[in-house]
Amino acid sequence: MALTSPSYTVTMRVQVATNPRATQHLVEAVVDAGALVTGIDMVESFEDYLIIEVTCDCVNSAHVREVQDQIEMLHRNKVLEISDATLEAHEGGKISVGLKNPLRTRQDLARVYTPGVARVCKKISRDSNFAKQYTIKKNTVAVVTDGTAVLGLGDIGPEAALPVMEGKAALFKRFGDVDAWPVCLDTKDTEEIISIVKAIAPVYGGINLEDISAPRCFEIEERLREELDIPVFHDDQHGTAIVVLAALINALKIVGKSIEDVRIVVSGVGAAGSAIIRLLMLHGAKDVIGCGRSGALGPFREEANPHRNWLAQHTNPRGIEGSLTDALCDADVFIGVSSGNILTGEDIATMADKAIVFALANPTPEVDPSAAARSAAIVATGRSDFPNQINNVLVFPGLFRGMLDAGVSRIDDEMLRIAAVAIAEVVSDEQRNSNYIIPGVFDDRVAGAVSKAVVRYFVREEE
Amino acid sequence: MALTSPSYTVTMRVQVATNPRATQHLVEAVVDAGALVTGIDMVESFEDYLIIEVTCDCVNSAHVREVQDQIEMLHRNKVLEISDATLEAHEGGKISVGLKNPLRTRQDLARVYTPGVARVCKKISRDSNFAKQYTIKKNTVAVVTDGTAVLGLGDIGPEAALPVMEGKAALFKRFGDVDAWPVCLDTKDTEEIISIVKAIAPVYGGINLEDISAPRCFEIEERLREELDIPVFHDDQHGTAIVVLAALINALKIVGKSIEDVRIVVSGVGAAGSAIIRLLMLHGAKDVIGCGRSGALGPFREEANPHRNWLAQHTNPRGIEGSLTDALCDADVFIGVSSGNILTGEDIATMADKAIVFALANPTPEVDPSAAARSAAIVATGRSDFPNQINNVLVFPGLFRGMLDAGVSRIDDEMLRIAAVAIAEVVSDEQRNSNYIIPGVFDDRVAGAVSKAVVRYFVREEE
Repeated sequence: MALTSPSYTVTMRVQVATNPRATQHLVEAVVDAGALVTGIDMVESFEDYLIIEVTCDCVNSAHVREVQDQIEMLHRNKVLEISDATLEAHEGGKISVGLKNPLRTRQDLARVYTPGVARVCKKISRDSNFAKQYTIKKNTVAVVTDGTAVLGLGDIGPEAALPVMEGKAALFKRFGDVDAWPVCLDTKDTEEIISIVKAIAPVYGGINLEDISAPRCFEIEERLREELDIPVFHDDQHGTAIVVLAALINALKIVGKSIEDVRIVVSGVGAAGSAIIRLLMLHGAKDVIGCGRSGALGPFREEANPHRNWLAQHTNPRGIEGSLTDALCDADVFIGVSSGNILTGEDIATMADKAIVFALANPTPEVDPSAAARSAAIVATGRSDFPNQINNVLVFPGLFRGMLDAGVSRIDDEMLRIAAVAIAEVVSDEQRNSNYIIPGVFDDRVAGAVSKAVVRYFVREEE
Repeated sequence: MALTSPSYTVTMRVQVATNPRATQHLVEAVVDAGALVTGIDMVESFEDYLIIEVTCDCVNSAHVREVQDQIEMLHRNKVLEISDATLEAHEGGKISVGLKNPLRTRQDLARVYTPGVARVCKKISRDSNFAKQYTIKKNTVAVVTDGTAVLGLGDIGPEAALPVMEGKAALFKRFGDVDAWPVCLDTKDTEEIISIVKAIAPVYGGINLEDISAPRCFEIEERLREELDIPVFHDDQHGTAIVVLAALINALKIVGKSIEDVRIVVSGVGAAGSAIIRLLMLHGAKDVIGCGRSGALGPFREEANPHRNWLAQHTNPRGIEGSLTDALCDADVFIGVSSGNILTGEDIATMADKAIVFALANPTPEVDPSAAARSAAIVATGRSDFPNQINNVLVFPGLFRGMLDAGVSRIDDEMLRIAAVAIAEVVSDEQRNSNYIIPGVFDDRVAGAVSKAVVRYFVREEE
């Protein structure tokens, strides 16, 4: 049976016939239907019936209905109402705009609005650098998407992407104290997206591109980096690359191998895959093979897509041709950012001794983590229900915190590498083991470590 | 001497020689320099010197320096630091993004972000109407400007306009509990502004256009109203028109005249002036004359600008030609949305008996309010330091609150009129007098009255 999940937590308000064992029978019915009971509350008690609320984690909507059926099969039970904790958590949106200072008196009004505000406007109009001091630009990042590559859902459009962008904004605040705002664009035209982001940029101190499909995301990011004077970061590429490198640095220490020597196979050569390959090479990796749907890329074959061709011409130094499983044979490291269940435990067993497997496809990893663990020394996934969760939230809040604090106008690749090293170092030598290669998402040391490393890097650059 | 203002409140940290009368002498020096002392604090006391902080309202920056000089003229006094309350109130911006629910546990994360958020995305992707239920669209308004007509400062650009847009967002929250977000656009191209606002619209439940210069603001508003399915409102036009009509309704009751009968002269036929004229006519005004820089508009002359020509052909039924002062002779109502000091008390004295004068140019009214009051029955301005302040903040928070609550997709003119009536009615028959024709900006009944009227109007429309 599939796993129950806190993203399917429902509360059912049930009317049951009065009976000293009513609660027990209700819990049994829910358990029999395969749900995980996390709470039970007697709401009201009458002579002939009781109102009980039972909260449980289910697998999916069909499972919720099964649970309801199971409850109602009991004599005279009736489910009056089902409330869904996930939908409730999104009701009316997840972020809001607040005042930094209260607005109580005419004097407050005269300062933050007319006539006082005119003085601040004039100051910025004379020297636009003051915008970073006297406006929200100092601490605000745009989370920009066109809704074309949202989670694993694909092109669902800007409205449907908004809950993810709000969630991202919430994480920015929670982990980095960065004010982030969703910008969901109703256009897929590359040039139009570039010109819109440039036009809205005056309000922002940084741009976080999110869930824009490849290969458009590459051009949009490159052009905006050239044409704007605030940092532009495509999280699906570089956020993923940074956290992968961080995890790999620690994993290699555990197995006692060096990045210069290992053979690395990356499954998936889209936004995330190509950024991972580039960052690993910047950190010293020499033998990396990228595999797409048609197998290993390499100097033996021209690729039509220029990004993919760059990879083909700069990776796979041994010229290995063939499928992903061919490339995997004797490899030290597998990194999957592709799709679920494309490899078996047997495939992993063909890898070198003390293999490292990062199967990051979500929600279903490239290989079953338990099967991979039979031969691999270290296994990591993108999921929270296995050890070693590789999650971008370890990266972007601290990274932007640092860039805003340092007043950075441009990202460079070395900064991305330094951020990865900073995350890796949060795990001390004593703590590090095969089930703990990367800090947990609620580890409150991470964002500070990343932001400090970023600030230090840029301050040194300027000297 | 010009007036001191809370928008020039400074705190000076002064080192003075220890002396039992030190505080008294310091206050005297500040008062002698013409500033208003609002606070005094002994910070530290040593054997030979004291550190005292004196807070005072000044007139402008030059006056701040005069106050400092006056203080330092006293034997051994030294101003160590001057802090400016207005600039401090803007430090780092005036609004922030907050989480509506805390994000404490993995379970919270699984609900508001992956994997739970995917369920909400899918729901909206199947039916985009759910965006109004499960995202910030439900309560969020974009405050859009290109920075071309900011306050009285003119075309100062998008960065310098941001403090005003943040202030507007703060007022939206404070008075209407609406989440508003600044969108400051780095383009002045009408078509580009229209297409950008359409592209960013998925996140918003309404668009508030702000400080965009005429005549571009007319086309931008009209086109967006046609092409978007959320309400679009240009505050400089309609916000001003609504609050002027509200004040005029009450003023006419006091002087016992009816809107159908009075002669009205409007000085200024830009964004605000033309919207005022149209709304007054919708409420029954018959005899309105609009005056631009070249005098009265009327059916006797074609105007090149189509908006201005509409006014010329639909107003001034008696065909009065000539200057503003010519038109003003025997008029019952003067409404100025033009520039300071263009009329004298003598000009006002040529108006009809029981004249009503709204001199709204800011910060300097069209006519000195005291001079006007010598002959006029009722005088109102845009300033907070005279009675009857005509301020848009009475309008937009409640108006958008009502439109968001009612899920309105399009504004119509009748709604604007109804909002004006609702504001006027907040002042009861008992309260109404020549110094109280319009509620104060902190009157917490106003936003509720406006939003209720708007909701009632749209609910009735749908029936």
